Amino acid sequence: MGKLNQKIKEEKDSGFSTVVSGRFTNKDGRYNVKRKGVNLFDRYSWYHTFLLLPRFKFIGILVIAYVIANLIFASIYYAIGIEHLTGIDKSSPVREFVDVFFFSAQTFTTVGYGRIAPVGALASFVATFEAFLGLLCFAIATGLFYGRFSRPRAFIKFSEIAVVAPFEEEMAIMFRAAPFKNNMLSEAEVTITAAIEETKNGKLVSKFYQLEPTLQKINSFSLNWTIVHKIDSNSPFYGYTKEDFNNTDIELIIMIKAFDEVFANTVVQRTSYITSEIIYGAQFLPMYHSSKDNKTTILDLDKIDEYKRVE
Amino acid sequence: MGKLNQKIKEEKDSGFSTVVSGRFTNKDGRYNVKRKGVNLFDRYSWYHTFLLLPRFKFIGILVIAYVIANLIFASIYYAIGIEHLTGIDKSSPVREFVDVFFFSAQTFTTVGYGRIAPVGALASFVATFEAFLGLLCFAIATGLFYGRFSRPRAFIKFSEIAVVAPFEEEMAIMFRAAPFKNNMLSEAEVTITAAIEETKNGKLVSKFYQLEPTLQKINSFSLNWTIVHKIDSNSPFYGYTKEDFNNTDIELIIMIKAFDEVFANTVVQRTSYITSEIIYGAQFLPMYHSSKDNKTTILDLDKIDEYKRVE
Amino acid sequence: MGKLNQKIKEEKDSGFSTVVSGRFTNKDGRYNVKRKGVNLFDRYSWYHTFLLLPRFKFIGILVIAYVIANLIFASIYYAIGIEHLTGIDKSSPVREFVDVFFFSAQTFTTVGYGRIAPVGALASFVATFEAFLGLLCFAIATGLFYGRFSRPRAFIKFSEIAVVAPFEEEMAIMFRAAPFKNNMLSEAEVTITAAIEETKNGKLVSKFYQLEPTLQKINSFSLNWTIVHKIDSNSPFYGYTKEDFNNTDIELIIMIKAFDEVFANTVVQRTSYITSEIIYGAQFLPMYHSSKDNKTTILDLDKIDEYKRVE
Amino acid sequence: MGKLNQKIKEEKDSGFSTVVSGRFTNKDGRYNVKRKGVNLFDRYSWYHTFLLLPRFKFIGILVIAYVIANLIFASIYYAIGIEHLTGIDKSSPVREFVDVFFFSAQTFTTVGYGRIAPVGALASFVATFEAFLGLLCFAIATGLFYGRFSRPRAFIKFSEIAVVAPFEEEMAIMFRAAPFKNNMLSEAEVTITAAIEETKNGKLVSKFYQLEPTLQKINSFSLNWTIVHKIDSNSPFYGYTKEDFNNTDIELIIMIKAFDEVFANTVVQRTSYITSEIIYGAQFLPMYHSSKDNKTTILDLDKIDEYKRVE
Repeated sequence: MGKLNQKIKEEKDSGFSTVVSGRFTNKDGRYNVKRKGVNLFDRYSWYHTFLLLPRFKFIGILVIAYVIANLIFASIYYAIGIEHLTGIDKSSPVREFVDVFFFSAQTFTTVGYGRIAPVGALASFVATFEAFLGLLCFAIATGLFYGRFSRPRAFIKFSEIAVVAPFEEEMAIMFRAAPFKNNMLSEAEVTITAAIEETKNGKLVSKFYQLEPTLQKINSFSLNWTIVHKIDSNSPFYGYTKEDFNNTDIELIIMIKAFDEVFANTVVQRTSYITSEIIYGAQFLPMYHSSKDNKTTILDLDKIDEYKRVE
Repeated sequence: MGKLNQKIKEEKDSGFSTVVSGRFTNKDGRYNVKRKGVNLFDRYSWYHTFLLLPRFKFIGILVIAYVIANLIFASIYYAIGIEHLTGIDKSSPVREFVDVFFFSAQTFTTVGYGRIAPVGALASFVATFEAFLGLLCFAIATGLFYGRFSRPRAFIKFSEIAVVAPFEEEMAIMFRAAPFKNNMLSEAEVTITAAIEETKNGKLVSKFYQLEPTLQKINSFSLNWTIVHKIDSNSPFYGYTKEDFNNTDIELIIMIKAFDEVFANTVVQRTSYITSEIIYGAQFLPMYHSSKDNKTTILDLDKIDEYKRVE
Repeated sequence: MGKLNQKIKEEKDSGFSTVVSGRFTNKDGRYNVKRKGVNLFDRYSWYHTFLLLPRFKFIGILVIAYVIANLIFASIYYAIGIEHLTGIDKSSPVREFVDVFFFSAQTFTTVGYGRIAPVGALASFVATFEAFLGLLCFAIATGLFYGRFSRPRAFIKFSEIAVVAPFEEEMAIMFRAAPFKNNMLSEAEVTITAAIEETKNGKLVSKFYQLEPTLQKINSFSLNWTIVHKIDSNSPFYGYTKEDFNNTDIELIIMIKAFDEVFANTVVQRTSYITSEIIYGAQFLPMYHSSKDNKTTILDLDKIDEYKRVE
Repeated sequence: MGKLNQKIKEEKDSGFSTVVSGRFTNKDGRYNVKRKGVNLFDRYSWYHTFLLLPRFKFIGILVIAYVIANLIFASIYYAIGIEHLTGIDKSSPVREFVDVFFFSAQTFTTVGYGRIAPVGALASFVATFEAFLGLLCFAIATGLFYGRFSRPRAFIKFSEIAVVAPFEEEMAIMFRAAPFKNNMLSEAEVTITAAIEETKNGKLVSKFYQLEPTLQKINSFSLNWTIVHKIDSNSPFYGYTKEDFNNTDIELIIMIKAFDEVFANTVVQRTSYITSEIIYGAQFLPMYHSSKDNKTTILDLDKIDEYKRVE
C-alpha cells in the first residue's frame, strides 16, 4: 500500500461510505449500492426502470403485455358466451377461442373490422372497457417511447483504461473521453474523486480525495479530451511509485457534466478506474487527424484506448 | 421557551409569515398555506392538480369521464332517433339505449365495428364530432400520463424524526435522508431553516434562522446522508437544554436539492420537523452494511428511523 | 421631469433601446417590440404561437382544421366517383356529398365503421393516405396539447399598481406578488429595472437603472411577497418628490424568477409599472390571516391591490 | 500574418484542436468534426438525427416507411393466401394485391372498415400483430413530432458579417444578433473565442483567445444586440492593421446563451466569422425604429447586414 501525501486534505463530501465493499461506481457509471427495505413497489420507480431497459427488452415487454391482455379479455368473452359475438367460426372450440382472441385484439387496438362484433349488454360492456383500456395503454406506451428517446444522455465514451505517464517534468494520471454521437456538447466539466484504501485502526477504510485536473472545463467538447491530473505536491499521489500504484486499492471516480445543445439540457456521464485499469508508464496515441482535403478534423473513436509504453 | 443565542442574525428572506398559524411546511413538504380569492378556475392549475393526484384517483377520473361522455352522446343519439342508427336491437327501450350507449363508446374510442353505424346527416354529424372529441381526449390523456410519470421527483426518504446528540465535543441536531428508488442523485445540497417561536411585544411571532450543516453538499447521493447541524457558538440553539428543546415551538424546514441523472434534471424534496418530532439524547444506528461477498454496499431503508438513546 | 440622483450609475445592459417608443414591457410581461423583415413563416415559430394561444382559439383552430380536411377529402372522393364507395345514399347529390363527407371523417379519425367503404384502387389509395394523415395530425395535436399544459409557467399574480410610501425613515417603492395557483415556488428572485425618460441633447431618451430591493431573494414563495425598493442615497429616485413621480415618464420593469417544484423547472414572470400605475402616498393592506383553527395561513388573492392612503 | 499582442494569455480550454483543418465551427454553428470508428449505429443517435432533419425530409421518411410497411404486410397476407381475407376483389392478381395492400393499410392505421377482414388463425394473427405495430409506430411518430417542435431553440439571427470600426477612440470588432421569432429571450450572454493561425516551429497551429465584449450580458434580448469587442491593450488584436486582418487566418467563434421564457429553458446559438467574413472599416446601420404612433419599436430583421463604409 502506497504512502499518501500527508499534506493533502481528505474529502468529506464524497457521499460514499468509507467502509470498503468493492467498487464504489461501476464501469457504466451506476453506483454500486443495493437497497432493501420498504416494499418492492416503493423501492422501484417503474418509469426509471422502463427508461433504462435495453431496447429489445422494452419492446419484448410491450409485446408480452399485449398478448396477455388479449388472452385475459378473450377468456372473459369466452366465459360470457360466444353467442354474444357475431361472426364467430364455431367449427371447433379451438377455432372459437382463436376467433375470440382476435376479436379481443381488434378491440384493444381499436381496429374493429366488425366481422366479429359484440351483441348484448355484457359482451358490449367488456368491449367498451377493453377499447378504452387499449387506448390508455397506447397512451402510456407513447409516453414511454418518448421518455426513452428524449431522455438527455451524454453519449460520452471514456477510455477503458487510465494511464500514468511523464507530463511537464512530473508524472500525471491521464484518461480520455470523447463524444461519440451526432450530439453537440459544450461547457464540459470534469470531476475526479479518488478513493484510496488505507488501514486505519487495523481496519480497511477508504479515504476520498479530489484530484485537480489541469483543465477542469472546456468550452467546446467536439474532439477527444485528455484529462490530465498532474502528480505534483498538491496531489495525494505525490511520491507514489509504480509499485504503489499497482499494490494500492485505488478507484478514480469520474464525472463529466456538459451542456447538450440538441437537448438544450445538462447531461452527465460517469465512469471509474480501479487499480487494474490504471497502467503505469503508458501514453495515449493521438486519435484525430485532418481530412484529406484538410477542411475537417476526423476523430477516430476506435483509437480511444490506443497507447504506447513509455520508460 | 428557550433563550436564543443572541449573536445569531435572524433570517429575513425565508418567505414565510412571522405570524404563527401552525406548521409552515407539512411533513410531505407542501406549504401549509391556503388560498382564496380570484375564482376557483384561476386558482387551480388543473394540470398541476392532475400531476399530483394519487394514481387510483387519476385513473378513476378518466373512467368516470369516459362513462359520462358516452352517456351524454348516447342521449343525443337517442334524442335524434334510433332509426338513424343501423343494427340497433329494438326489442325494448332499455336494450335500445344500451345499444346506443355502446355505439357511442365504439365511436369515442374509434373502434367502429360497424354493426351499428349512423345513417343520415344528423347522427353522422354527431358521430363525426364524437370521434374527433374522443381522439382529442385520448391525446390529452396521453399528455397527462406522460406528464405524470416523467415529472422529475426526488424520491428521497427522510427520517421521521430528528435527534439531538453529542457530536465532536458539542451537541448536534441530526436527521437523515436516503434515495429510496433506482434513481441516480448527485450534487445533493441541503438547506435547513429553523422557525423558532418567540414572544415579541406580548405577541407570539416566529423568527427564522439558517442552520449551518457540517456538510452542505455531497457529490454522490447513493447511500444515506446524515445531516448534522452542530450546536456551537454559531448556532441559534447554543446553550439550549433538553427542556428548552421540549418547551419551545421549533420547526426545522428542510430542503434537499439534487441532480437526478436519469431525468437529467434538478429535483427537490422537502420536509419539516416540529418540536414533537425532535428527540433529545438519541443517536441514529447505521443503516448500511456490506453484502456477503463484500462487493456491494446494502442500504436498508427500513432502518432509517432506528436510533438508540444516549445519556 | 424629476432630477435624478447623479451618483447612480446608469445601466448599460438592459437590452432595451434608449429611443422612446411607448412602454418597453407590456403589462402582461411581453416585450413591446414588433418585428418585420425576413418572411412571415421564418418570423413566427408556429409552435410558440400555438403554445401561447388562448384555450378556446386553440380548440377552435383544431375543429376548423378538422372540418376543412374532411371537406377537401370529401371533394376528392366525390371527384373520383361515388361508385367507388359502397353504401352511399344516392337519393340526391346533397345526400351523396354528406355521406362522402362522413366517410372521410370516419377515415380521418380511423373509426372506419365500414357501412361506407372504398372499393377500387383510387378511392382506397386516398383513404389509405387520409387515415395516415389523420393519425399524424392527431399525433401533432397530442404534442400540442402536451406542450401547452406542460409548459412551465410561473402563475404569479402581481399587484396592478405600485405604491410609494414611508419605510424605515425613508420613502420606498413597493409592489407585491403572490403565487395564485396550487404550484410550489421556491428560491424566488426579483429584478427591478427602472426606465426613466430624460432629455439629452434636446431629444427624449430613456435611461436604465437597476433598483435594489431590500430582499432580492426569498427561499419559499408561498405567501405574498411585498417587494420594497428603498429610496435612499443609493437609489436614482433619491430626492424625488410626489410631483417628480407624477410628472416623469417612469417604467419599472419587473422580473421574478423562481423554481417550480411541481414542474422541477425555473419559471419566470414579468410585468411593468408605468407612471400612471405608481401611486404616491399609499400603503398596501395585509392580504393573509390565520385560519379559524389557527393551523393554516389563508392568503386572500383578491386583496392584492388593496391599499390605504398615507400622509 | 499579423503580429499578436504578446501580453494576452492564450486560452487552453477551448476544447478545439490546435491543428489546422479548416473552420472550427461551421456558419450554422455545428462543429466541423467528423467521427469514424465504433459502428455506425453506435455513432449516431437516431433521435438526434430525426430532431435535426429538415421538415420535408422528416415527413418524407414517415410516408416512405408507411408505404414499405404496407408492402411488406401485403406480401405476407398474399403469401398466406387471399382466401383468408373476406371481400377481396379477385378479378385479377393485380387487383388482388391492391386489395390486400389496402387491407394492410386499414389494419396498420386501425381504420378497419371491415369490407375486407381476416378469417382463419394465420391471417388474423398477422393482422393482430400489424395493428399493434401500427399503434406503436404512431406512438413513436407522436414522440418524434413532439420532440421536434418542443426542442428548445434559440431562434437568433446573426449578421452574416462582422465589421471592424472605430469605437470610443479605438477600433472594435462588431457583429450583431437579433431574436427573429415570437420568442421571449432574457439574460442573454455572449462568448467570443478567437482562433488565430500562427507559425510555431515551422508548423501552422491555431491559438485560441477569449475576446472580451464591452457588454457580456443583457437582461432583455428583444431588440438587436450589437456585440462589440474593443481592440484595446487587452485584446490580442491590439496593433492589428487592416492588412493584418485581411492576411491572417482568423476565426471568431461565437456562442450566445439565453433563457427562453416560452420554453422556460436555456437555449444556445452559435456561429463563426472567418477572415473573409470580417470587413475592416465598416459600421452597421440602425435596424430598428419607432412605429408611426410612437407606441412600439419596430425591428427590421432584413437590415441586420446593412453597413456603411467608414474611413
